[in-house]
Amino acid sequence: MQSFSFLKIPVHNGLTMIIDKGQSPEYVEHSMKVFANYITCAKFGWGTSAVQSEEILKEKIEIYKKYGVKPYPGGTLFEYALKEGKFLEFLDYCNNLGFECVEISDGSMEIDFDLKCECIKKAKEYGFIVLSEIGKKSIEEDAKIPISKKIADLKLEIEAGSDFVILEGREGGKSIGLYDEKGNLKQDDLEQIVNSDIDFKKLIFEAPLKNQQVEFIERFGNSVNLGNIAFDDVISLETLRTGLRGDTFGKIPK
Amino acid sequence: MQSFSFLKIPVHNGLTMIIDKGQSPEYVEHSMKVFANYITCAKFGWGTSAVQSEEILKEKIEIYKKYGVKPYPGGTLFEYALKEGKFLEFLDYCNNLGFECVEISDGSMEIDFDLKCECIKKAKEYGFIVLSEIGKKSIEEDAKIPISKKIADLKLEIEAGSDFVILEGREGGKSIGLYDEKGNLKQDDLEQIVNSDIDFKKLIFEAPLKNQQVEFIERFGNSVNLGNIAFDDVISLETLRTGLRGDTFGKIPK
Amino acid sequence: MQSFSFLKIPVHNGLTMIIDKGQSPEYVEHSMKVFANYITCAKFGWGTSAVQSEEILKEKIEIYKKYGVKPYPGGTLFEYALKEGKFLEFLDYCNNLGFECVEISDGSMEIDFDLKCECIKKAKEYGFIVLSEIGKKSIEEDAKIPISKKIADLKLEIEAGSDFVILEGREGGKSIGLYDEKGNLKQDDLEQIVNSDIDFKKLIFEAPLKNQQVEFIERFGNSVNLGNIAFDDVISLETLRTGLRGDTFGKIPK
Repeated sequence: MQSFSFLKIPVHNGLTMIIDKGQSPEYVEHSMKVFANYITCAKFGWGTSAVQSEEILKEKIEIYKKYGVKPYPGGTLFEYALKEGKFLEFLDYCNNLGFECVEISDGSMEIDFDLKCECIKKAKEYGFIVLSEIGKKSIEEDAKIPISKKIADLKLEIEAGSDFVILEGREGGKSIGLYDEKGNLKQDDLEQIVNSDIDFKKLIFEAPLKNQQVEFIERFGNSVNLGNIAFDDVISLETLRTGLRGDTFGKIPK
Repeated sequence: MQSFSFLKIPVHNGLTMIIDKGQSPEYVEHSMKVFANYITCAKFGWGTSAVQSEEILKEKIEIYKKYGVKPYPGGTLFEYALKEGKFLEFLDYCNNLGFECVEISDGSMEIDFDLKCECIKKAKEYGFIVLSEIGKKSIEEDAKIPISKKIADLKLEIEAGSDFVILEGREGGKSIGLYDEKGNLKQDDLEQIVNSDIDFKKLIFEAPLKNQQVEFIERFGNSVNLGNIAFDDVISLETLRTGLRGDTFGKIPK
Repeated sequence: MQSFSFLKIPVHNGLTMIIDKGQSPEYVEHSMKVFANYITCAKFGWGTSAVQSEEILKEKIEIYKKYGVKPYPGGTLFEYALKEGKFLEFLDYCNNLGFECVEISDGSMEIDFDLKCECIKKAKEYGFIVLSEIGKKSIEEDAKIPISKKIADLKLEIEAGSDFVILEGREGGKSIGLYDEKGNLKQDDLEQIVNSDIDFKKLIFEAPLKNQQVEFIERFGNSVNLGNIAFDDVISLETLRTGLRGDTFGKIPK
């Protein structure tokens, strides 16, 4: 039952994606009881899935799904499998584990763009919900890609079948993607995104830092899709979306 | 039973207030078994209470109280209720949930100072322990208030009935209140507080960062009241208060 | 059972030491089920052991040992006991609690080097695995010790009987030991270590920050011994050691 229901709290329909860095099944279960209704999907960050046992993975996948949350393995693991020539084994194994989504990215290695789109299509054929990601893990490599190219690519990935496209922010949120070395948003890049004709319901901003979450909410509204949210910050983000924290207090229309 | 009791560990009677950002009931219970005897109260930060279900809130309030810890909702939620014209409903509902303390603040909105004091008095009439807070959530707004004004106000709030007055430090502890943009203490402001005739037993410094905790202990002694302590830092703070960490080793009189 | 076993993941035999800041027994147990096989020892940081009850300490020591992990009290507690003239009581009590390792350090107080070596020998006589630590907790004091002196001392401590020697990095990893104020490695100091004839299997680098872990792995290989790893970062470190995270992707030989 909702608490403080006599207060009129604004609503939203933004997607929130959390990052699971190898949390224990018990921690996941206890956390889901508190905030599962505020999140849509849970990413097992980068290649962390492959250093957790099969038993642990299956247990966690079941817990997330029981609470209506969609877990999926991070894109780096897809890249690792592709490099090993094991893409189809990867899809089969993810399916057997119970994952219903996969992420297709090229953040850690060069992948021909046509091949990336082929991988998106193949994952869709397998029946997965597909999240694809734009951006490089390396500060230097990522900085070489102008925002206009990223915008063009993400549209093509949606055309190829991606259900969601993620803009890279990493776990740290600094010196990468839309963020400068202090984690502040690069305003010129942001303007180009705001002024583009992207379908924002299909776009997820990785925004691990509070100032980033606040700025996206102010620029795109409280239903903006945000990812790489730490477990500890889910409830905080929900207060930002609803004007219950100083940073957005009085700024969220009802 | 105390461990390492053959070592003479200094004692203290400082108040420690932790910040609960939406922790699960299980996490709270497990943590209280370890460190409940080191904390006095637990703040459900800002408006986080309103995005946790009534069942979860009641369960957590019971757990804290079972361990002798006083939980209370953050001041931002009071402000939200006041803005909605629901202050008395807020007090009633907090009482029904089992909260024994409330926080009265004006960090996120302008509240006439007389009205703020009236709210403190009303909450006292309802039987609550009252913590009131001095300072703004906005870096710009907070910087406009000289420390002399803050000192004057906090004395008036104690006269109005506040059991404790909190000096704002937010969760991050930077660019706010007594802290500069790196989280270091502004020495001029600190001097004015040290040299004032405040009843320090009624003052709580929000001090989320270790360097801040160390400096307050060095300036005010190990019984200084400190707030906004993260769960993960409670045991660390206790070692700072007792000279069991390098930062205060050999500096705490027995 | 290993997950994603069709991918060829590199192996390593590096030691990982985690830092326990006062975690609850339940949290430890749940975490060990996920990653005990990736860690060798668990340090109860600095003097935290002495502000946890004897019951909690014993329960946690048992849990760690059940999972094959060696817990031990931080060096600051040894120093505190030595200062109080209670070194032998300290060893007896640690033994009674079930600790099989102790740490001998002089980070928070001056200890004559011969006395430090005597303490190492005495702890060995008692049957403990001994980790000794090089470096000061104070930024100013630590900066006075040239790396050449640290290298010479750590060799002498190994001669005195230390099973492992730890290079100080504290919990924060900044402005201390090998790290500058931003947490980056001081390249000149690092070069001297790389070019020394230290037995690297006996050396543990405290490396709490990801960039530090990455650089040590790149310079010394993925079997480098790393310490002061946060619970939340153990799985991440394992992906760094195995090339499953962007930072080391494609850089770890099989």
